[in-house]
Amino acid sequence: MQILSVNLGERSYPIYIGAGILPRVGELLAQAGLRGKVAVVSNPTVAKFYFDPVDQALRQAGFEALPIFIRDGEEHKNLTSLQTIYDRLIGARLERKSCVLALGGGVIGDLAGFAAATYLRGVPYVQVPTTLLAQVDSSVGGKTGVNHAGGKNLIGAFYQPKLVLIDVAVLKTLPRRELIAGLAEVIKYGVIEDPTLFARLEAQMDKLIELDNDLLIETIATSCAIKGKVVEADEREEDYRAVLNFGHTVGHALEAVTGYTEYLHGEAVGVGMVKAAALSRQQGFMDGNDFDRILQLIRKAGLPTEIPESVSLSDLIQAMEVDKKAAGGKIKFVMCNGLGKTKFHWLATSEILAALSA
Amino acid sequence: MQILSVNLGERSYPIYIGAGILPRVGELLAQAGLRGKVAVVSNPTVAKFYFDPVDQALRQAGFEALPIFIRDGEEHKNLTSLQTIYDRLIGARLERKSCVLALGGGVIGDLAGFAAATYLRGVPYVQVPTTLLAQVDSSVGGKTGVNHAGGKNLIGAFYQPKLVLIDVAVLKTLPRRELIAGLAEVIKYGVIEDPTLFARLEAQMDKLIELDNDLLIETIATSCAIKGKVVEADEREEDYRAVLNFGHTVGHALEAVTGYTEYLHGEAVGVGMVKAAALSRQQGFMDGNDFDRILQLIRKAGLPTEIPESVSLSDLIQAMEVDKKAAGGKIKFVMCNGLGKTKFHWLATSEILAALSA
Repeated sequence: MQILSVNLGERSYPIYIGAGILPRVGELLAQAGLRGKVAVVSNPTVAKFYFDPVDQALRQAGFEALPIFIRDGEEHKNLTSLQTIYDRLIGARLERKSCVLALGGGVIGDLAGFAAATYLRGVPYVQVPTTLLAQVDSSVGGKTGVNHAGGKNLIGAFYQPKLVLIDVAVLKTLPRRELIAGLAEVIKYGVIEDPTLFARLEAQMDKLIELDNDLLIETIATSCAIKGKVVEADEREEDYRAVLNFGHTVGHALEAVTGYTEYLHGEAVGVGMVKAAALSRQQGFMDGNDFDRILQLIRKAGLPTEIPESVSLSDLIQAMEVDKKAAGGKIKFVMCNGLGKTKFHWLATSEILAALSA
Repeated sequence: MQILSVNLGERSYPIYIGAGILPRVGELLAQAGLRGKVAVVSNPTVAKFYFDPVDQALRQAGFEALPIFIRDGEEHKNLTSLQTIYDRLIGARLERKSCVLALGGGVIGDLAGFAAATYLRGVPYVQVPTTLLAQVDSSVGGKTGVNHAGGKNLIGAFYQPKLVLIDVAVLKTLPRRELIAGLAEVIKYGVIEDPTLFARLEAQMDKLIELDNDLLIETIATSCAIKGKVVEADEREEDYRAVLNFGHTVGHALEAVTGYTEYLHGEAVGVGMVKAAALSRQQGFMDGNDFDRILQLIRKAGLPTEIPESVSLSDLIQAMEVDKKAAGGKIKFVMCNGLGKTKFHWLATSEILAALSA
């Protein structure tokens, strides 16, 4: 088992990464000083496989699990589900020293984390992410929240977990399409921060997709370490943390114009990273060799790399303007200036259009 | 104008206290580095008097006010009102640098503060309290939140304002009953921390109730300074901050058993402080002279001092057990061991019953 640490002063916490470590969840919670009731927030899809082992592990360590299941899907990451969680927490009289455990992907983590941030003005919470995307991205960094009809993640809080437990063995029940979507964020860490990780992915992508445990642990640990480092430098995204948005400006717009039904988040980010790389090359920050390597790796992972014909580029740019609140002005992009390096750069919509059309 | 400072590192903020300073709100917001849109959360009762001057002051300083009015009353401090605020903030596209201004009493402050804490994972907010209770208590210290059918303040966040503006001139439109209820918290500060404040209240209570501006400014400044000092020592109420609950254990129970309709919060705290003082005397912490002075001052303010015959003491004790989650066990009380001094003490229900029956 690998143990990383995210260092945020009194909000610091460990990330445990291993294969088959789910049964140690009770022991690790006890070690973190938690006790009493644990509200396990999950969805039926994940709970079918993993609620029982978690429940048993908690019981063996002297905890009492309170299951709270939310229906599966991004559309349930809203105030209604949040109210359901509050009702259950209050009904079961959870106290300030009780804890909330998120057992699921990003939707569950964001919902459970926000409920924990706001129940009794904040109770401890624990992340047990069960998708690759949540393991390398959303479970680390303390962004919690829900969507609103007016937009995604508009309501939320920065709130750090007490610990994160990542068991790579749970990925064997993850649909392959979701596994591949998660790889987009892993590739992103290589592009923005770590040429060695990038090269390792080039060499071993197939083995990773075949769920080699040691390679998964190593890759996820490297990803979490990069995310943790960025969050340590800029917890509340005043500035630098925005480098994590590489590929996300076009990615978010693509998700929005296709009504959030065509693409998984990571798939849209795959396309977005290719386009951000193209913009970086167009602006003279990146050479053709790096661009080709990025394109090839995203393709090798099985992620989409092109904006489909059916999507209008002007719609896409309009969606970026809404997302970035930049109507009529320039849009701030994360550029890659050589593998492992980034810079912020403001682009006019005409420049973006030129790169997207190329 | 007096300026106090609450020192909480990067979450520090000033409290401005003066008579007739409401028209300076725009200038003070600009000085705090705020700009753009300001969501002014208020209720119709308060807005009738003070929205226009605030709107005008904001406009003159280059801000744009977005009025958001919530119906008046504690029963509207809930998730439904919160959703109304979110809908308006999102509809008007308020951004991360926009700000939320609470113009009203404790209900408005708690609601607006929690909305600010959670909209876009936190936007700046400003407290402009218009009741004495909010001026000396709820506007300082960063407790924000809403009620749930299962209990008061069960959902919320610790979130500090960017500044607090207290204009004592607004108290002239406050109903006398609410003014007097606010005095309970002022008296409390004297009892738990400041014999000089207590003696000043003994000498000048009538003048205070007649709204002498200079005396109000001095008294509110002293109260805010005490509250600020306690919050600085224990922002998240791990321990010491609970001294602010002097008189509140019995007070909360009295509010609960009378269905939150008979007593204003401060009135129930008036009774609660007399009973906490009686318990302190019974336990040998306080002498008869201090007890008499506390009783007389609470009476002089026009606050109730006795539990009415119609309230069953066993119901009251049961309500305390629910509030303090202490069924069958002992209840942690804040005792006064001589004016200006406190200590925590665990009491059995039999001891509480004896003091309440005396």
